[in-house]
Amino acid sequence: MSRAGHPKFLHPLTGTSASLLQATVERLAPLTTPDRTLVVTGAAHVAAVARQLTGLPEENILVEPSPRDSCAAIALAAAVIAARDPNAVMGSFAADHLIRDPDSWVRTVQEAVRGAEQGMLMTVGITPTRPETGYGYLETGEDTDGSPWRQVAEFKEKPGAEVAEAYVRSGRHLWNASMFVWRVDVFLAELARQQPALHAGVVAIAAAWGTPEQDEVLGAIWPTLPKISVDYAVMEGAATAGRVATVPGDFGWNDVGDFHTLGDVLPADDAGNVVLGTDAKPGVLLRDSSNLVVVPQSGRLVAVLGLQDLIVVDTPDAVLVCPRDRAQDVKALVDELKERGEEGYV
Amino acid sequence: MSRAGHPKFLHPLTGTSASLLQATVERLAPLTTPDRTLVVTGAAHVAAVARQLTGLPEENILVEPSPRDSCAAIALAAAVIAARDPNAVMGSFAADHLIRDPDSWVRTVQEAVRGAEQGMLMTVGITPTRPETGYGYLETGEDTDGSPWRQVAEFKEKPGAEVAEAYVRSGRHLWNASMFVWRVDVFLAELARQQPALHAGVVAIAAAWGTPEQDEVLGAIWPTLPKISVDYAVMEGAATAGRVATVPGDFGWNDVGDFHTLGDVLPADDAGNVVLGTDAKPGVLLRDSSNLVVVPQSGRLVAVLGLQDLIVVDTPDAVLVCPRDRAQDVKALVDELKERGEEGYV
Repeated sequence: MSRAGHPKFLHPLTGTSASLLQATVERLAPLTTPDRTLVVTGAAHVAAVARQLTGLPEENILVEPSPRDSCAAIALAAAVIAARDPNAVMGSFAADHLIRDPDSWVRTVQEAVRGAEQGMLMTVGITPTRPETGYGYLETGEDTDGSPWRQVAEFKEKPGAEVAEAYVRSGRHLWNASMFVWRVDVFLAELARQQPALHAGVVAIAAAWGTPEQDEVLGAIWPTLPKISVDYAVMEGAATAGRVATVPGDFGWNDVGDFHTLGDVLPADDAGNVVLGTDAKPGVLLRDSSNLVVVPQSGRLVAVLGLQDLIVVDTPDAVLVCPRDRAQDVKALVDELKERGEEGYV
Repeated sequence: MSRAGHPKFLHPLTGTSASLLQATVERLAPLTTPDRTLVVTGAAHVAAVARQLTGLPEENILVEPSPRDSCAAIALAAAVIAARDPNAVMGSFAADHLIRDPDSWVRTVQEAVRGAEQGMLMTVGITPTRPETGYGYLETGEDTDGSPWRQVAEFKEKPGAEVAEAYVRSGRHLWNASMFVWRVDVFLAELARQQPALHAGVVAIAAAWGTPEQDEVLGAIWPTLPKISVDYAVMEGAATAGRVATVPGDFGWNDVGDFHTLGDVLPADDAGNVVLGTDAKPGVLLRDSSNLVVVPQSGRLVAVLGLQDLIVVDTPDAVLVCPRDRAQDVKALVDELKERGEEGYV
């Protein structure tokens, strides 16, 4: 389902008919308004984003002329927001994450906003539930007296299995969910300090925003911006300088890395079967089966008899069947398709 | 109304609630299907385009990462179409033209399609009704025996007043409406001959289209493409080589250069008043007035008493009033606003 033309965030992987993107924006409703909600997306997906988020003003959909990693995308949004309101507090959230308890998530972000108002670069850290090697970690320092957040001492890359176990045992490590909350003036000052070229570039683009020169300036400057993640470019250095703090959260976070974890997050029936896009017709027919993750997306009936712990994905031009514990190896399949030149399926 | 954020083609300047863009696509209905209709647009407008053209598949909305003039835009569309169907006949039409007689326009384009199928690069030429100095002209050669089209000998730039009068007298000159019809293989071959770098670039982009590398390849190659109009880059040289022909058309063409000409094209009431966006509330109140062009776009009532030959445009943040024969000087006003740093109104 998550092909080049239609990536994960555009799909209804939420247990309802909402796409991950739509669910992300809906989750923000208690915190902000559509007027103050911006989306940054690649040229290939703008049309789909504009159609899925009908409540968003068109000028709030920012188009990256080419992929230049997260720092350029987030910095562009920060500069455009700063041009509207120089003291605004901005939150940055990926559109392909699932959150089981949105109310708890809102409370966590509200705590982060309070830290941001005081001038900290805030992150949301996830209390780890297992020694996951697929995520980065935040190493926290001392509890700040009386405040609900903790100083972030260091950003840690994805660890090996042993290190991950040590992290979880330490009680001081949180998963880095790449959720950021900061005052735009504070973030842009930190960007200017660590990445002056990137800062100058996005400020120049923001100055042309909404003028007849917008596309011209964006097209000229964007390709020159450094291609770097915001973690490397800004957050690690800011943590060293003591400017990053985190609010630990526990709201059933999942980055929808694969269908197996998706099956763990979404509501299952009595037999433990999870069906995605439940309103798809003609739907699914499951007999004597349990712990399945079934994704009917082709308009065909999907029938399963007498099987356990499988993933079944049916799309118009491909069917995937695999054990749930092999879900992570789907990427290897994709690589093999690429090697065979079957780019149409990738 | 036609500001940077919302250019002319997105506005309902058609006498109905349809925007110029929507009217352009509707006009194509007898000739093609939404599946075979592509739009090329700048990053700043893709969200609006996607929302106005709800019937168009998302993958048919092509985004220019930056403005690189008409040749790159048209060549990109040609290459993407050729990847789907190498022998397709393609028509290229601006989205900001008004056409009073769509049925006659369809018949003219159908004639052009026949010429295109025989391997000619076809244009649609407009029989001039006045010695217009604001348009380019096509100088036609001999009538082709028995065929409804004429050879194009030369493309002529916007002339001075005397030259324009000579053109109209000659009977051999047509307005260049920048409407093109050709087989994509013929156009791409001519592009390869005259603009090999541009040809290689769009072919490489089209090869990555729909793959995970689409935005990456588009973003890398697009800024390197020559910034040149399709007239200069391809059509003039092709005309010299005897490969361009034109079908003269007479269907009430107007490029919506200003509100005065718009008033001439759209249906007027008995007093000669033209109101644009007639379904806007609370609308207009005209007494003892005639030959007005009134554009109510702010939600306010627009009332005019005892005046003739004026243009009145009311938008949420600006009101414009001027005589119809000064409509072309609005651009000078815009330049003055720019000089005064009032970019928000431009």
